[in-house]
Amino acid sequence: MSTAEETGEDAPWGEVTPEAARRLLVAAVEAFAERGYHATTTRDIAGRAGMSPAALYIHYKTKEELLHRISRIGHDRALALLEAEAGGEAPAAERLAGAVRSFVRWHAERYTTARVVQYELDALSDEHRTEIIELRRQSDAVVRRIISEGVAAGEFDVPDVPGTTLAVLSLCIDVARWFNAQGSRTPEEVGALYADLVLRMVAAQK
Amino acid sequence: MSTAEETGEDAPWGEVTPEAARRLLVAAVEAFAERGYHATTTRDIAGRAGMSPAALYIHYKTKEELLHRISRIGHDRALALLEAEAGGEAPAAERLAGAVRSFVRWHAERYTTARVVQYELDALSDEHRTEIIELRRQSDAVVRRIISEGVAAGEFDVPDVPGTTLAVLSLCIDVARWFNAQGSRTPEEVGALYADLVLRMVAAQK
Repeated sequence: MSTAEETGEDAPWGEVTPEAARRLLVAAVEAFAERGYHATTTRDIAGRAGMSPAALYIHYKTKEELLHRISRIGHDRALALLEAEAGGEAPAAERLAGAVRSFVRWHAERYTTARVVQYELDALSDEHRTEIIELRRQSDAVVRRIISEGVAAGEFDVPDVPGTTLAVLSLCIDVARWFNAQGSRTPEEVGALYADLVLRMVAAQK
Repeated sequence: MSTAEETGEDAPWGEVTPEAARRLLVAAVEAFAERGYHATTTRDIAGRAGMSPAALYIHYKTKEELLHRISRIGHDRALALLEAEAGGEAPAAERLAGAVRSFVRWHAERYTTARVVQYELDALSDEHRTEIIELRRQSDAVVRRIISEGVAAGEFDVPDVPGTTLAVLSLCIDVARWFNAQGSRTPEEVGALYADLVLRMVAAQK
């Protein structure tokens, strides 16, 4: 895991205990990102974590359980970041810019995790995929609400609110694909650039 | 391959001959998209194409050769689409909107191919990855040039031309991740929405 992966939060995966379960989860993220979910075995994951397959089985019954845990934590985190910026009395432009900055920063700082979370949805069980899609609907609803409020307040001019919401989230999510910790822009710089571009997309009054 | 995959061009993969080589390539796109490159074997690909592993070997020496062929054709096509819209005497806004519409349509109509092309870059050999990255630089340069010309002509107001270029291409590319042929928007509708959003991003004069 790159250094940038560690800087995003005080303790990434801090909610995963005991420490052995966390170590296995971090190993799974790395393995899925490098080789894809289907090419990774529980043996690979245990090996990366310096553990035996039997030790892995104490914490996770299946490989899909690991993916679900990663996806659930990632989606919960992304939704929480958006919700933290969405409320309050500030103008919609300020809230939308804050949500974009925060969401982009997460996708840049934790791009390895974000790629797994975004690209392996099809590998989840039907039940788990349904649960995750509901979290994605909630994220979409948070952004749509800010944009709608901005339109209602006369701050924004947006002919297609659902389409623009989709585009805003898509723009931010794709940061995980192209962002490279060795690149020339920091997560903060990308967040600031994208907040400006999104305010232009909604034609925010200056 | 979905019906939408077939509608984008007169003959997708038409440049791949003989027919057996084309059939193998289509099978490889499907397999890579479904299971990932690393989880797919040449035996899987031959089986999907209704051929023997030995018959595959006549056309492709390695699995990587298949991926490279897919990636090369996809990137050549994407660059050609952008270049076809970039030149001429039309105002920059018109050329930029045309490039976005065309690029988005391709990523929506041929989303299975586009996902393989976009997400499996790391699986290419060093030599092939270098070649593909050069094609991506050229696509970036085409869009950057249109935006720069719009700024120079006073049509656009863009403080960060390289960053905005990156964001425009990223927005279009991510269509391949979320676009679903069963969804409510056609490739043309997404193209039109995105052309409008991109003109807002560059603050095009109306």
